[in-house]
Amino acid sequence: MATAAAVDAVVRAAGPHVAELMARVEQRLRELAAGHGAVLAEHAGATIAAGGKRLRPLLVLLAAGAPAGEAATRRLVRSAVAVELIHSASLVHDDVLDAAPTRRGRPTVVAAAGRRIATATGDLLFSRAFAELAAGGEPDDVRALSAASSALARGELVQRADAWNVAVPLERYLERCVLKTGSLFEAACRLGALAVGGPADALGAFGRRIGLAFQLLDDVLDVSGPASRTGKARGTDLLDGTVTLPLILARQRDPALAATDLRALRDPVEAEALCDRIAATGALEEARRRALDVVAEATAALPALPDRQRRALELVAAGVVERYA
Amino acid sequence: MATAAAVDAVVRAAGPHVAELMARVEQRLRELAAGHGAVLAEHAGATIAAGGKRLRPLLVLLAAGAPAGEAATRRLVRSAVAVELIHSASLVHDDVLDAAPTRRGRPTVVAAAGRRIATATGDLLFSRAFAELAAGGEPDDVRALSAASSALARGELVQRADAWNVAVPLERYLERCVLKTGSLFEAACRLGALAVGGPADALGAFGRRIGLAFQLLDDVLDVSGPASRTGKARGTDLLDGTVTLPLILARQRDPALAATDLRALRDPVEAEALCDRIAATGALEEARRRALDVVAEATAALPALPDRQRRALELVAAGVVERYA
Repeated sequence: MATAAAVDAVVRAAGPHVAELMARVEQRLRELAAGHGAVLAEHAGATIAAGGKRLRPLLVLLAAGAPAGEAATRRLVRSAVAVELIHSASLVHDDVLDAAPTRRGRPTVVAAAGRRIATATGDLLFSRAFAELAAGGEPDDVRALSAASSALARGELVQRADAWNVAVPLERYLERCVLKTGSLFEAACRLGALAVGGPADALGAFGRRIGLAFQLLDDVLDVSGPASRTGKARGTDLLDGTVTLPLILARQRDPALAATDLRALRDPVEAEALCDRIAATGALEEARRRALDVVAEATAALPALPDRQRRALELVAAGVVERYA
Repeated sequence: MATAAAVDAVVRAAGPHVAELMARVEQRLRELAAGHGAVLAEHAGATIAAGGKRLRPLLVLLAAGAPAGEAATRRLVRSAVAVELIHSASLVHDDVLDAAPTRRGRPTVVAAAGRRIATATGDLLFSRAFAELAAGGEPDDVRALSAASSALARGELVQRADAWNVAVPLERYLERCVLKTGSLFEAACRLGALAVGGPADALGAFGRRIGLAFQLLDDVLDVSGPASRTGKARGTDLLDGTVTLPLILARQRDPALAATDLRALRDPVEAEALCDRIAATGALEEARRRALDVVAEATAALPALPDRQRRALELVAAGVVERYA
């Protein structure tokens, strides 16, 4: 999603009950942020409160559709909160590994409090996600969330295993994107459907595809920039040894690129030059097109749903695309 | 427990069904180690396979007592595996933060593969623990495990918040020990009891106390050494700013110690000298006595149990003490 405003538009399209549920999700996240006693969760609290666009919790609610009684509603709110907590945990750990100074315009936990506290804060957010679902006592929900959190970690391991490998197969790259991003979007949609007895597999597949497209387009942005929009220099992934779709497509179009040694990149200037060579092959347009195809597949394969619910989900899909238009 | 041999003695005392269940736990841990596809969980697999004394899984089985049908047995094995996975995850993350070169005589994950892979490996082990319990579909089990894993992370946060504070209150220190160590021992005993409909609260309280005593005695060892036995220099905690029971008791006996500035410790030699000053106050004997009192309380408060089960639990309690005799 491009902006908080775009998320607001989706919430409006989805109907007043979604706005109300999002408010309950925020309320519960604030409670958790304040919980655990003053000092204890200072950093976890700040992380939760700092927010973000809450795209994943929104997907939980949209996948559930119309409101469905207080028990289902409580389950939905718990699921939405749990998904956001897992997402926050993964961001906190990512920031530790990247030694990132800021996120969402605030200092990261690692910048504010050091690696030890930041690692423990991520672990705490992670644990709290499962505690939140455990309170509901729904085994299917715990199963969906643990599958996604395992996938997130496996995605990171695959990314490390494939680092610096310019010849990484396309399929392996796509698998990594599903693990890193698709799996939590899938869990969000699955959890929403489970709470109301909806079509969990079909909505899960929608979420997985939307997440995959989200990651593909994110990887395009790393090469295309501009930095003024992404908030980071072009080619950051390349400098880090992470081979993504633009380079995978470009190496087929320009054989010289297939011989690139990413370890030889000495600085951001050289990384930008490589981005320019990748862009010159037309690979960025093809990568974007492939991402749009995935989004189109996602919406085409949506199961039969009430009109309003379908429109809201399509708006989310369009928002993922629009971010990169 | 002093050694793998002591654990074997407990297993023998507990009866052949415990040996059989431990074999099933090991089998399942090996399956998980081999799972996730070749490269993916290479490091998680190595961590699981490397083993340890499996004290926590053993507690799960002992708290359950006599065998009780295949469904309860499967639940027990899952719980024992999940507890060991959480323990392994926390060790892997600890090693990242301590940049530890070896554990259990092998290179740590962080030493072998770097911080990024080690952090993700810890996250994966963590997620797998919940996936293992989710497969069983028992909400109470997930609740017990998520409470313990939250506590582990909070324990680390408390430890960081109190770092370098020589005046930390005794109660706060004890709370930290329960969070860091008691909570997972408690969960182990609780999970064992839950699987067979046993007295979960009473056995959980036993586990919490045994875990607390385990941590108290561990903290004594850091000051008492000898390094030849602990495998690390005396005063490692002090150099790290971690104030534990020996110093807390010693500062009351020797007011000069209350004015210690741990940040002024320049090297292991100065840390050893501080250990000697702490030992000279008699604080180590008092700390040991307090730990033994906690163990005595734990066994005294055991609920009515079959003789064989009670004896096995008492042997574990004795083993925790013996390690430091």
